[in-house]
Amino acid sequence: MGFLAIADQPEREPIPGFVGRFSSGATMTSVSWTIAAGALLPEHAHPHEQVAHVLSGEFELTIGGETQRLRPGMVAFVPPNVTHSGRALTECRIIDVFHPVRDDYR
Amino acid sequence: MGFLAIADQPEREPIPGFVGRFSSGATMTSVSWTIAAGALLPEHAHPHEQVAHVLSGEFELTIGGETQRLRPGMVAFVPPNVTHSGRALTECRIIDVFHPVRDDYR
Repeated sequence: MGFLAIADQPEREPIPGFVGRFSSGATMTSVSWTIAAGALLPEHAHPHEQVAHVLSGEFELTIGGETQRLRPGMVAFVPPNVTHSGRALTECRIIDVFHPVRDDYR
Repeated sequence: MGFLAIADQPEREPIPGFVGRFSSGATMTSVSWTIAAGALLPEHAHPHEQVAHVLSGEFELTIGGETQRLRPGMVAFVPPNVTHSGRALTECRIIDVFHPVRDDYR
């Protein structure tokens, strides 16, 4: 897919308060999120592995029953098919990368 | 792999000027790089797909003969087995995610 500017990708809000810009290569999908303070990530799971990098703000994430407060400089790996949920304690910027490509985010 | 702090991962410098902290899940490896101004990424290729997010600084990247200056907010997908090279025009912070896991970075 080559080079792209995140700002050129259309915004989508698949979950209330989670505004993302999406890009996909052959095997991975990247999402740059701006998440409103207080927004809730409902409990869910997907067959994709997910790696999340927190760039700013604070996000409380629960993976398979373990909860941590993610701050900038923290990384979370969500294994395939493991239930996860969360909430934004402040406005956050987070980069998620999924493998394989998320066809629902193309 | 769950939660981790990038700062807790050991630093490695596999290429002069490229100081990275590495973490891997089941299918992806993430690297948080601090790259010295002027550092050179020699031309190379690998079977992994790579997605790079520039957090700060400016990095000139060539993928398969196409060169662009990456700035914050830009993303580059390097397809599997495609030759790429580059240089840091300033000190940079870049997050790379690779699929599959980079066994050489474990």
